[in-house]
Amino acid sequence: MGKEKDGKGAFQLKVPKGTKDWDGRDMVIRDKIFSSITDVFKRHGAVTIDTPVFELKEILSGKYGEDSKLIYDLADQGGELCSLRYDLTVPFARWLAMNSSVQSIKRYHIAKVYRRDQPAMTKGRMREFYQCDFDIAGVYDPMLPDAEIIRITCEIFQSLGWDGKYTIKINHRKILDGIFQVCGVPTDKIRTISSAVDKLDKSPWEEVRREMTEDKGLDAEVADKIGEYVVKKGGEDLLQQLQTDEKLSANESAKAGLDDMALLFTYLRSFGVLDRLSFDMSLARGLDYYTGVIYEVVTEGSAPQKSQSGAAKKESSKPKKPTDGEEDRSNDPTVGVGSVAAGGRYDNLVSMFSGKQQIPCVGISFGVDRIFSITKQRLAAESTSAPIRTNEVDVYVMAFGGKGFDGLLPQRMDVARTLWDAGIKAEFSWKVKPKLPQQFKAAEQNGVPFAVILGEEELAAGQCKIKEMGLAEGHPEKDGVLVELNNLVTEVKQRVARLYQTNNVAAGVGSVSLEEAPAAPDL
Amino acid sequence: MGKEKDGKGAFQLKVPKGTKDWDGRDMVIRDKIFSSITDVFKRHGAVTIDTPVFELKEILSGKYGEDSKLIYDLADQGGELCSLRYDLTVPFARWLAMNSSVQSIKRYHIAKVYRRDQPAMTKGRMREFYQCDFDIAGVYDPMLPDAEIIRITCEIFQSLGWDGKYTIKINHRKILDGIFQVCGVPTDKIRTISSAVDKLDKSPWEEVRREMTEDKGLDAEVADKIGEYVVKKGGEDLLQQLQTDEKLSANESAKAGLDDMALLFTYLRSFGVLDRLSFDMSLARGLDYYTGVIYEVVTEGSAPQKSQSGAAKKESSKPKKPTDGEEDRSNDPTVGVGSVAAGGRYDNLVSMFSGKQQIPCVGISFGVDRIFSITKQRLAAESTSAPIRTNEVDVYVMAFGGKGFDGLLPQRMDVARTLWDAGIKAEFSWKVKPKLPQQFKAAEQNGVPFAVILGEEELAAGQCKIKEMGLAEGHPEKDGVLVELNNLVTEVKQRVARLYQTNNVAAGVGSVSLEEAPAAPDL
Repeated sequence: MGKEKDGKGAFQLKVPKGTKDWDGRDMVIRDKIFSSITDVFKRHGAVTIDTPVFELKEILSGKYGEDSKLIYDLADQGGELCSLRYDLTVPFARWLAMNSSVQSIKRYHIAKVYRRDQPAMTKGRMREFYQCDFDIAGVYDPMLPDAEIIRITCEIFQSLGWDGKYTIKINHRKILDGIFQVCGVPTDKIRTISSAVDKLDKSPWEEVRREMTEDKGLDAEVADKIGEYVVKKGGEDLLQQLQTDEKLSANESAKAGLDDMALLFTYLRSFGVLDRLSFDMSLARGLDYYTGVIYEVVTEGSAPQKSQSGAAKKESSKPKKPTDGEEDRSNDPTVGVGSVAAGGRYDNLVSMFSGKQQIPCVGISFGVDRIFSITKQRLAAESTSAPIRTNEVDVYVMAFGGKGFDGLLPQRMDVARTLWDAGIKAEFSWKVKPKLPQQFKAAEQNGVPFAVILGEEELAAGQCKIKEMGLAEGHPEKDGVLVELNNLVTEVKQRVARLYQTNNVAAGVGSVSLEEAPAAPDL
Repeated sequence: MGKEKDGKGAFQLKVPKGTKDWDGRDMVIRDKIFSSITDVFKRHGAVTIDTPVFELKEILSGKYGEDSKLIYDLADQGGELCSLRYDLTVPFARWLAMNSSVQSIKRYHIAKVYRRDQPAMTKGRMREFYQCDFDIAGVYDPMLPDAEIIRITCEIFQSLGWDGKYTIKINHRKILDGIFQVCGVPTDKIRTISSAVDKLDKSPWEEVRREMTEDKGLDAEVADKIGEYVVKKGGEDLLQQLQTDEKLSANESAKAGLDDMALLFTYLRSFGVLDRLSFDMSLARGLDYYTGVIYEVVTEGSAPQKSQSGAAKKESSKPKKPTDGEEDRSNDPTVGVGSVAAGGRYDNLVSMFSGKQQIPCVGISFGVDRIFSITKQRLAAESTSAPIRTNEVDVYVMAFGGKGFDGLLPQRMDVARTLWDAGIKAEFSWKVKPKLPQQFKAAEQNGVPFAVILGEEELAAGQCKIKEMGLAEGHPEKDGVLVELNNLVTEVKQRVARLYQTNNVAAGVGSVSLEEAPAAPDL
């Protein structure tokens, strides 16, 4: 339907290319992911800041190299020239430079960023998409903030139910630089050789070696020496091996990096997350500004899923909800290539804005759109018979009666008001005389777990019925239980609390593990 | 500091004109307001949708009349022409038209909108600011959704602690139109005369009469007849008076409007919010598209505060936190002129996008930036000695020791890990050997309510201390209480829960009445 023409203005009824509306079940899943992540940040004392969606054009200039051509500019309508933010890191650095009284902060920021990417060129990249950044700025004892970021990352993926399904690849820029120096890479080629190494997750060593020697003019001998190092992966064993490498230990940069890693491993053992790590010498990260530890989170789902389970295939063969005429790439399993989170230490970035003074930083950026896609696929693969809820209503207030039934509207309104006053999420039909089946259907469509049913006789006796929806035939409470109207709030609250407890869902708390509670009433 | 020049690039370190960074305490207050509002929406079964920050230019064209010149366009960098959204209503109508399977929805949307306003012309208007919209789309029995929107509005202002401090002015477009017809306003002048009437909240009748007669060419006699009606204010008494007005009752439009109002009043009595209303015949609302009931919420604080309390003055004389070189208009008491929420029924807007089919709508938009300013002023006026908290940490894990003290870092990390695993918000110093006063200072600065204190002797006995911060001299637990390490999580959880209970704050729940709990530990 997306591209339909409207008779009047003959304009296309669609959203701009590379953007999408979030609604329905997707919105619910996305919100749960955001609130799970936010809860972890807050557990570690983080605060959030919110910057404008556009910045002065000159603030973004010279920060993104070749990618600067992807920046969206605002039209020159007089006044300052502005551009939509390209990421959340530069606005954070700008904020730090402007607020010089802030010498340290743990800040998170979940917001949309904008890139004029060619969708055809970069599989499934959106032009408007969410980033979720967490950064620690300030001078502290070595590796302590770095360790806490790894710990936070693990808590986040655990809260999303990804336990055992992800790996944090880790490396250190100083170790890499030391290796390049030891192997004999000329100083002016270190960054470009580093970029070549970063391709080892997609290309075989032979191809990377060819790029180094043929494209970048590195001696074959030097490339082969590098090759011996960068294929190494492991844990503490690898660290020990490198520490006993005499050439590396003699190199100042490598030595500093190895000392950092040893300290980090110690801290991560205290934090109970050392086993999530893979010390991966091929990890180099594209951005120039990293100065210390670097890391990337990969998961089963972040590799292509084409050859995966039938369940995933089944999901994608479902008729897609028509949205905007754009290909809905957020559902495309091929999107999943690459990492779901990445970051590292960058100690020199803030000085790009503030000449005076340096503030060391370490951070991580979560690819929340990618995390959303993977979560959605997993939920589909695990789908249970639980109804899909897009709202959070716990009680549907309904009425029935025989001949001459007037709809009991004032009574329904009064009961709804009582429930709302007690903070209970409740709805009733906006019809004066609704039929009972209509009311049940409305409750069922949204998976509302309880009905409060009003009848004239019961009301006259000061009573009404509470019925748990979806009970099996023959269940003793299938037809509901009579309760005193005076006691309705307590009776409802008890049942709602019990239901959420049974489903392992904390009532009223935003953070819900999507995976651990697939049958939760609010999914 | 804002406009400082940087030596390197000689660019201005600031945010664009009319925009601001949200951070620190402002961010905390704003988030609490957003979550209070969101909780009420969810209590009534609302869902949220999220639309792109820019729309196709042609979607916004022809929707805002003269104000179209305030729309921000994106630069033409090839491809579609786009503009930043000007409000949340047009994107909602566009979404409804695109998703024709959606025949009814209750949706809320809290997001930034963009207007190239001249700050000098319109006191304190920002160019990027938040709107919070709630709308009900769909065909229902008359006035039931309208009544629920009024009820929701009352719940929101109650949850913000504004009880007794706000009034909902209400009127009906059909009654107004009927009055104009009865008084003899020519059909083609009805909308322009309606706009004149809308100014009665700022100008005296004489001035409005002059505009009607001199500027808009209305007969003086007709103007005087209008004058008799539009000065009327009241409640059910006024409704009864108008219902017995023979001329009005004979007018089809007025009759329909009065019937609607009578039904609405009945429903609002059932909902227990009738007394919040002022039936105000001078309320006309600017936008053309309203077709039924219209309303506006005013509060003490939304009138100019210049002549108000000394406390408010005191606040504004405090040194302002330097931000971006822009005048920080969100703190300007003169901003508060006008309403804090407004809306009404608009049954014909969706058809502007979708020729096929009409979806009746009724909605309200909350001026959340304005609500924020008033809330902040009130908090300042009531300020207690409670520390200002910008993060939510409940426990600071610290250590102390005598000569040869090694900082107990692994032990602090281990305890922090245990607390995090239990979902407790905790921090510790990122120093290997922090001094005890430094650790207390860090905890005090953020108003962290509890310290867990580790000492070598206590640890050797499997124990540590929990100390509630800020207890008075002589309090029996001033120096903390010894607890078993094995039992630490339980001991901490009990104390945190008790503290939040005492302060009338639901632990872990986002919605907090800012006014009812000024001493809450998280403000």
